[in-house]
Amino acid sequence: MAGLDRLGEQGFIDLVARLNRDARPRPILGIGDDAAVIALPPRAQILLTTDLLTDGVHFRAASTPGRLLGRKALAVNLSDIAAMGGAPHSFVAALGFPRSTPLEYARELAAGLVDQARRYGVALVGGDTCAAGRLFVNVALLGFVEPGRAVRRGGARPGDALYVTGTLGGSAAGLLLLRRGVRYAGPSRVTGARLSAAARRHAARAVRAHLDPRPRTGAGRALGMTGVASAMIDLSDGLAIDLPRLCTASGTGAVLEEAAIPVAPAARALFGAKRGLACALVGGEDYELLFSAPPHHAPTITRLARRLGVPMARIGEVLERRGGIRILTRDGRYRPLPAGGFEHFPHRAA
Amino acid sequence: MAGLDRLGEQGFIDLVARLNRDARPRPILGIGDDAAVIALPPRAQILLTTDLLTDGVHFRAASTPGRLLGRKALAVNLSDIAAMGGAPHSFVAALGFPRSTPLEYARELAAGLVDQARRYGVALVGGDTCAAGRLFVNVALLGFVEPGRAVRRGGARPGDALYVTGTLGGSAAGLLLLRRGVRYAGPSRVTGARLSAAARRHAARAVRAHLDPRPRTGAGRALGMTGVASAMIDLSDGLAIDLPRLCTASGTGAVLEEAAIPVAPAARALFGAKRGLACALVGGEDYELLFSAPPHHAPTITRLARRLGVPMARIGEVLERRGGIRILTRDGRYRPLPAGGFEHFPHRAA
Repeated sequence: MAGLDRLGEQGFIDLVARLNRDARPRPILGIGDDAAVIALPPRAQILLTTDLLTDGVHFRAASTPGRLLGRKALAVNLSDIAAMGGAPHSFVAALGFPRSTPLEYARELAAGLVDQARRYGVALVGGDTCAAGRLFVNVALLGFVEPGRAVRRGGARPGDALYVTGTLGGSAAGLLLLRRGVRYAGPSRVTGARLSAAARRHAARAVRAHLDPRPRTGAGRALGMTGVASAMIDLSDGLAIDLPRLCTASGTGAVLEEAAIPVAPAARALFGAKRGLACALVGGEDYELLFSAPPHHAPTITRLARRLGVPMARIGEVLERRGGIRILTRDGRYRPLPAGGFEHFPHRAA
Repeated sequence: MAGLDRLGEQGFIDLVARLNRDARPRPILGIGDDAAVIALPPRAQILLTTDLLTDGVHFRAASTPGRLLGRKALAVNLSDIAAMGGAPHSFVAALGFPRSTPLEYARELAAGLVDQARRYGVALVGGDTCAAGRLFVNVALLGFVEPGRAVRRGGARPGDALYVTGTLGGSAAGLLLLRRGVRYAGPSRVTGARLSAAARRHAARAVRAHLDPRPRTGAGRALGMTGVASAMIDLSDGLAIDLPRLCTASGTGAVLEEAAIPVAPAARALFGAKRGLACALVGGEDYELLFSAPPHHAPTITRLARRLGVPMARIGEVLERRGGIRILTRDGRYRPLPAGGFEHFPHRAA
């Protein structure tokens, strides 16, 4: 297969520019000058975030199709903007390729960035690319939010309810399957495992959750604009790490109800109730939103969830700081939240 | 020496946040949430750029002090905003470190980013860091410009004069010295070469030009706000590559006058007139500004240069496209501009 080095940097930039021809929202000036020029709504405050995906740390190129890697590199940044209650707008991407990268892989990666951009209505406006020791993708995403409307991590108050969107643990279940040699073979197909038909469907869903997460941009924006969420964070590292982050920033404690945690059906079906719960708590990379809201907003949240078609489950409550961070188990006991999350996950559940 | 891996990612982020405590302009929300929140002047258009520096491609960690690498990673982005006539404002940085990176090197790199930020009045507002095969630094810089005032590459018209700021070739001369084993030992000191006292001063200047370039933010902004420059680009790859870029974008040709090119005294003194000129034409990384301006702006440019203390030399003229891109040599002949610039430089001049 042709290597990227034969195309050269300018050739690759031209390829990306061609893929990106119809980018919307149209920048005033896009790829090809010293910097992009962008107009945002007047009086908007600007959001800026950056997230890096590196081969061998965040993904393995061997089991990650280029197309999905491109999508995910943008998705993880979209998720950060969603967690601020903002609207994403434009982004730049820096790509590092080992010289041996097949051209087709690089092309697919660029196509994934661009098709994810189209799906979420954001525009690729610039970038940089160069040779690297290991493949990496770094996106910096610009968004905006109405003045004073950004939802921080630090706004939770004792008595607020805690919610999460969607289901948790699907991504971790997918990662476990990939480590066992299961391979993505399309949006609802996997190969490399002997599984029943039902298990195979679950496996496809889990692998897709891991490789092609869908950030909650609509829900995040709605929760921000309505002023319903008092604090919000996206679940990139798992409830067991991200909830303490929210609590630390807010100066509070929290209690989770184990029975209320929406464990992804795939995680439960493939790995059982106990490990399914572990996936949900310490798995990470679900890119769902964890938010707090005063109790009187409960009806609004129910309505929002229905209108958006995004499940929002009440999973616990914010406590005073001295209450610590605990989980109420199904047998009625309070336990400390398991430590861990992404960094420790491989040793605990693999 | 302690390795970065012992500090961990959170430890490093905390270190950067401490270094960055007094960042100005103060973001509404900086490091530590899902995204930064920033307020720009009302009605401003936004500029966004990203540039990547990778060990073995853009620099060699062995001969590049961490402090200067941090400064340069921001400098190359500041130069892009300057070339648009904009004001830089805030940035995010993504850092990839091999696990063996000495903690002290990583700390110096972060300190370099932060002290450069302070020098240029921009704020570090977020970032990401992770293990990498080779050290890299990727900055994405946000700036702003008054509506319609961004200076593009494509605005040059036949008859416009061509100018460059500062002197050219110093950075390339510095790179040649580094390749010969000369080492940076302070702002005006080098080691590793047997040189006369005068040559040593030149060498220190050249090495500093390469490792610690000073982007022309003041000049770029002034040229943009006054509306004097019809097109502008920063000289990252050398006149021989960047002038054709400006001409292609503008649909023009150009002629350079060899005798008018402000070759850096260090390049000329250390490598002679001929190779000094080659450094200026195809060396790259000077991060000076190349701009075009209608002839009637000449007095304004002279005044601006004096007021800012930034040399602005008239080096040629924009022609119709059919005139091609040529150089008028000292012996009165027209020659095609030497091909090359960064990509070919090692084979031509080293």
